[in-house]
Amino acid sequence: MFEEKQQRTELDLMGEFGLIDHLTQDVKIYHPEQTLKGIGDDAAVLAYEKDKKLLVTTDILVEGVHFDLTYTPLKHLGYKACAVNISDIAAMNGTPKQLTVSIAISNRFSVEALEELYVGMKLACDRYKVDLVGGDTTSSKSGLFISITALGEAKQEDITYRNGAKEHDLICVSGDLGAAYMGLLVLEREKQVFLANPNMQPELQGNDYIIERILKPEPRTDIVQMLKDYDIKPTAMIDISDGLASEIMHICKDSNVGCCIYEDKIPIDPATSMTAETFDIQPTVAAMNGGEDYELLFTIDQKDYDKIKDLGHVSIIGHITEANLGMFLMPRNGSPVPIQAQGWDSFR
Amino acid sequence: MFEEKQQRTELDLMGEFGLIDHLTQDVKIYHPEQTLKGIGDDAAVLAYEKDKKLLVTTDILVEGVHFDLTYTPLKHLGYKACAVNISDIAAMNGTPKQLTVSIAISNRFSVEALEELYVGMKLACDRYKVDLVGGDTTSSKSGLFISITALGEAKQEDITYRNGAKEHDLICVSGDLGAAYMGLLVLEREKQVFLANPNMQPELQGNDYIIERILKPEPRTDIVQMLKDYDIKPTAMIDISDGLASEIMHICKDSNVGCCIYEDKIPIDPATSMTAETFDIQPTVAAMNGGEDYELLFTIDQKDYDKIKDLGHVSIIGHITEANLGMFLMPRNGSPVPIQAQGWDSFR
Repeated sequence: MFEEKQQRTELDLMGEFGLIDHLTQDVKIYHPEQTLKGIGDDAAVLAYEKDKKLLVTTDILVEGVHFDLTYTPLKHLGYKACAVNISDIAAMNGTPKQLTVSIAISNRFSVEALEELYVGMKLACDRYKVDLVGGDTTSSKSGLFISITALGEAKQEDITYRNGAKEHDLICVSGDLGAAYMGLLVLEREKQVFLANPNMQPELQGNDYIIERILKPEPRTDIVQMLKDYDIKPTAMIDISDGLASEIMHICKDSNVGCCIYEDKIPIDPATSMTAETFDIQPTVAAMNGGEDYELLFTIDQKDYDKIKDLGHVSIIGHITEANLGMFLMPRNGSPVPIQAQGWDSFR
Repeated sequence: MFEEKQQRTELDLMGEFGLIDHLTQDVKIYHPEQTLKGIGDDAAVLAYEKDKKLLVTTDILVEGVHFDLTYTPLKHLGYKACAVNISDIAAMNGTPKQLTVSIAISNRFSVEALEELYVGMKLACDRYKVDLVGGDTTSSKSGLFISITALGEAKQEDITYRNGAKEHDLICVSGDLGAAYMGLLVLEREKQVFLANPNMQPELQGNDYIIERILKPEPRTDIVQMLKDYDIKPTAMIDISDGLASEIMHICKDSNVGCCIYEDKIPIDPATSMTAETFDIQPTVAAMNGGEDYELLFTIDQKDYDKIKDLGHVSIIGHITEANLGMFLMPRNGSPVPIQAQGWDSFR
């Protein structure tokens, strides 16, 4: 569906070291006081401040499982691979600082394709001021695999785990939910149209927002900063990669609490609702189980209510209850519905 | 060639989170004062000492490219995947502390197979006192991919880069070289025999040492400790993953120096020489270009000569020269031979 670049240089022409040098030659360092040595030795050398703790997270993205190159531009893919790891650092209430990138790629890709992927990764590093400090590039027998490890930092007292939610805490979510899943459904639909008739142009107009949400998610480091500015320390926090249902269940299980979420409080963009209608899907279902929104889900003490209600981009969607009351969604009409995870599982 | 375990539990029966919990339930933490939070949240939380720098390295191992499961037991593979990353930390003159493991695996593998892989990884973590602090397990369309990131620490003044070698420095190498490559050739030969006649038992007797070298390499953290004990700070250091030739070239290029290596000083085990003979390969070629030995190659100032000659497990194989003298191997007989890298390149 996306046009390929004209030029094609075979991967094996450059050799492994030449390739890594070529791809990383213009990597910028945003934290020279911390990143003492980036790419080019056996390991990167980093200085971390003595009053901060180090945060480490890793995610692997697999072609055919996590992304479909029929409709995923490599630049967007590179951006997203970084974004989802940065999001995990944000979910700890931390600041992302460095990342390493390991790629296994089959020789059906060209050097130019890898360049595109790196353009996207460098764009994400630039946007979020993260230093690309190392990695490994190797061949694969089939497909593209991207494994990224992100490092970040936070003061010990600022770190938010999943297990700190307490009864009566307010449940908050940033941005809006369900859009990424709707974007995925539109891309999958247009792929089928394209496969049936390769001369058809995909109909993506009017779907910009939801398509951007799936192809190029933005980790909410801005929310982490706002929480700091407003002096709010969440009691628990997680990023929404697998859908609201799955994530609130993680918080409730780890915190040994229950929850009550109000359907009419879940933030959903009009574009999401409109597309959901065309697919005959309830927007709430997309928000609860769609996943890949990379918004932050967090709980705060009730005393912070006055502060949080002034903070844009955040919705209060429910509250934490005793564990034995269970986890429920309160629908607009009708009786409470038990929350069940139907989030994404790569093995199913 | 290796028998499979009898029991088989399908990966999709456990689901992604159940699987990670299952595999990591008995993970031990060796540095509780540093590893504040391991597996189980969005990121691991680590405390690093204020007078130490953080070392970060990552390596990806791909089925069919870096390993062949016909003759690689999964337990050994797990061990090796950790070992090669720990080796990179050692090559910086640092102490390994934590690692994260990302795995993409196709559903032709069972839960029991993944368990075997994890047994090997935990064994390496136990042997080298490293904390397994996080990771990601996901499905792949085909094959097994293992991406590991290792974290370690060192005092700033102890860190050895590749670029510190100076004229007249002595070139040293730990252990012996070429054995891993000979082990690989034996395993490849027996694989061909096995494929031709599956009833034949592989002839591996007498080859224990060289086979162990390729299947279960040991990173030389002991050498790092010995260097500390003897108060020797290498001027440059690298681990030998791609063969002596490729690695000394890295040091010479990064340090802007030349080198002279004496063939008769290169440490080669008798088992390596004997096997090399049966394959009609010169043992020196195996040492120079074989790779995967994971020994340490380092340079030291001449003033440390008296200390290093008492240190077991280390051979002095040559010296550093001016850059314009080039990089040469002095053979037992005949004229100097320019050193060329014919090390391993996954794209070729």
